[in-house]
Amino acid sequence: MKRIYKAHLLFTKERSRFEVLENSYIAVENGCIVGVASDLSSLDYKSAEITDFGDCLLIPAMNDLHVHAPQYRNQGMAMDLELLPWLQNYTFPEEMKYADLHYADSLYRRFVFDLWRFGTMRACVFATVHTDSTRLLMHIFQEAGMGALVGKVGMNRNCPTELTESVEDMTQGCESLIEEFPQFYAQNSQPPTPLVRPIITPRFVPSCTPEMLRACGELAVRYQLPVQSHLSENKDEIAWVQALEPESSCYGDAYDRYGLFGQTPTVMAHCVWTDGEELELMKRRGVMVAHCPTSNLNLASGMAPIRKFLEKGLDVGLGSDISGGHNLSIFKVMVYAIQTSKMYYQQNQEMTFLTLPEVFWMATKSAGSFFGHVGSFEPGYEFDALVIDDSNLNFNNYSLLERLERYIYLGDDRQITHRFCRGREIKMQ
Amino acid sequence: MKRIYKAHLLFTKERSRFEVLENSYIAVENGCIVGVASDLSSLDYKSAEITDFGDCLLIPAMNDLHVHAPQYRNQGMAMDLELLPWLQNYTFPEEMKYADLHYADSLYRRFVFDLWRFGTMRACVFATVHTDSTRLLMHIFQEAGMGALVGKVGMNRNCPTELTESVEDMTQGCESLIEEFPQFYAQNSQPPTPLVRPIITPRFVPSCTPEMLRACGELAVRYQLPVQSHLSENKDEIAWVQALEPESSCYGDAYDRYGLFGQTPTVMAHCVWTDGEELELMKRRGVMVAHCPTSNLNLASGMAPIRKFLEKGLDVGLGSDISGGHNLSIFKVMVYAIQTSKMYYQQNQEMTFLTLPEVFWMATKSAGSFFGHVGSFEPGYEFDALVIDDSNLNFNNYSLLERLERYIYLGDDRQITHRFCRGREIKMQ
Repeated sequence: MKRIYKAHLLFTKERSRFEVLENSYIAVENGCIVGVASDLSSLDYKSAEITDFGDCLLIPAMNDLHVHAPQYRNQGMAMDLELLPWLQNYTFPEEMKYADLHYADSLYRRFVFDLWRFGTMRACVFATVHTDSTRLLMHIFQEAGMGALVGKVGMNRNCPTELTESVEDMTQGCESLIEEFPQFYAQNSQPPTPLVRPIITPRFVPSCTPEMLRACGELAVRYQLPVQSHLSENKDEIAWVQALEPESSCYGDAYDRYGLFGQTPTVMAHCVWTDGEELELMKRRGVMVAHCPTSNLNLASGMAPIRKFLEKGLDVGLGSDISGGHNLSIFKVMVYAIQTSKMYYQQNQEMTFLTLPEVFWMATKSAGSFFGHVGSFEPGYEFDALVIDDSNLNFNNYSLLERLERYIYLGDDRQITHRFCRGREIKMQ
Repeated sequence: MKRIYKAHLLFTKERSRFEVLENSYIAVENGCIVGVASDLSSLDYKSAEITDFGDCLLIPAMNDLHVHAPQYRNQGMAMDLELLPWLQNYTFPEEMKYADLHYADSLYRRFVFDLWRFGTMRACVFATVHTDSTRLLMHIFQEAGMGALVGKVGMNRNCPTELTESVEDMTQGCESLIEEFPQFYAQNSQPPTPLVRPIITPRFVPSCTPEMLRACGELAVRYQLPVQSHLSENKDEIAWVQALEPESSCYGDAYDRYGLFGQTPTVMAHCVWTDGEELELMKRRGVMVAHCPTSNLNLASGMAPIRKFLEKGLDVGLGSDISGGHNLSIFKVMVYAIQTSKMYYQQNQEMTFLTLPEVFWMATKSAGSFFGHVGSFEPGYEFDALVIDDSNLNFNNYSLLERLERYIYLGDDRQITHRFCRGREIKMQ
């Protein structure tokens, strides 16, 4: 069944500018976009059901490249410490609670609902070490019809006993999830890649012994699974990694030597202090950056040099990083990405600050590439989209681009009237 | 008629910590707080009407120390330039439209409604050069029952002809407003100081000839009116002021020599680059800082050294600075104030970052002091308050302080169920 949607289309085919198609049409079949046009007649529309969203904006849905589902309870609080003591004092105690499936069920459902509310249809998610509650989270995403790469977290040192797991248990737990959730990782697979899949997730080097890192790398390669972790977020953390892995030439190299740095598709969160050799290695290995500016401010980590990454040709997406970040809306993370880059520019004028199309592109087409053909309105892309009714913000003859900018800066969940993931409208409550 | 309100009371009597009174009572008479207690019996409650807000939080209302009402249309857009070209390209063209009373009426009503929506009950407001639309804005505040110091803006150089006014016309326009709106500026006046009053408002040194600045200073002293302007926001601006007023030892001195720097109560917005002699002069003259972190990020101005100001004993409040700032909610400005201070700290570890009680105190008791006894729940203070029903955020046994922190980080206008200004409940629509 072909469907055609009419609205004002705004998206970023390229990094540096918006495509703006006023009163235009998108044709969708089997979850994928089969045509985009300003006049209906140029589409094969005879058998299609047409939905007219009137004066609304239609934009690609948001992708969150880095978020900790079990930190949802701590969102918007406990912001008085830097990364390492913050983990010990606030984060680990909360994650321990996810041994309790009942607790996990209640909080994970709220978390997924809130992702949906703010228009995020795909996410790279850290769960906890607990296999059962990780499975539960994957089921919740699956029931919702939203896309997620969900990681059972590997950790076995420098953390509370309750969050420590043996390498064998980690491997076994991961394999049981891999068996249950088909893991085929390919962009043009037939049948289509499942929406919810496992992702190999060593927490970060300080939490993982070399054996744990090696086992994670082996799982990734054996099952051709993507990898996510944290990289160069905080100066104390980097010094600690250097002490723990003295033979590594940089933090990134400590992943690379265990097959966790681009051997399969890899996304690393933060990269605040990535430079020199580590930057070169990321480029060489095609490792993607999950830029989390809200978190980097809240935990006083620093300002990631995103302009430098882009000029180097690195792929960059955005992450909310709940609960280091407080804002689950990727629209607000875009605002923070621009603002942080302005502070960076203020101190390094050769690094021009990020523009609105650039951060929009990061959140949509660039981040979306980690999930397949996701994040743009081009034929062959999966139809992940949001309908924005911004009439309460649009009271004074704004252009379509001004309307989008104002929605990003001023809007919230109230203006999102419809959400689509892989062609299907996702409704909740 | 005495009224008593029951709820969880949270406020900052001192800068460094919250007062948290669970299930407690505030007694209000003639707009002022006459008693605060945890048990009703300790208040004289016999003749009082008691309102129970149940499990809601009751906090002081927000004060916005720096906002441009005629830039409301540009809120959340046009963020691609630094201060000086931004003024020329976006701000001045918009302000010109306020020669049209019809336009002003439509936009100013929306602006005041939005201030109300986000819980700001008092504001220091820049209008435009236009006397009639400035008067209109004052009437709108007066009708609403909200507090505002509103400035007809003085400007006569380096700006479009349409926004230029002669010194005589500026003086005459101000005097007509002063006549219409009683200007008596005293904290314990009987009858109480009017809620809406004029404030002397030279735009900033580059927009005002020495004659204009002198005339503004004379008006302030003659009518004992407060003063507001901009100070040391941007490096190019500072260099320009130095070129325009070469005999001034610093930007602040260029105001001081015309009687506009603490000769009457004065608030200066930004102070991003204030240091050394200017800082000393502000301290000596008791000039207050309106810290506008959102704007300072959006216009790539820099990070104001607020910890240094506090240690020096300067008074600091918060400002939204619409439309340099995009966020009219002072709660969100608090978040940005903490985040900016964390970036400052990240680069200057001796300057510890701002805490939640500190920014709350800035937005309430500290900023409130510019309007009288406003911003705290202490006997003798005017009852400016917000009722926060955060039940949708409070799903997991949070403490009262955690609930407040989460509201500040995650909440919006939807959780504000009642707003009070000087004891009166302010309702709109």
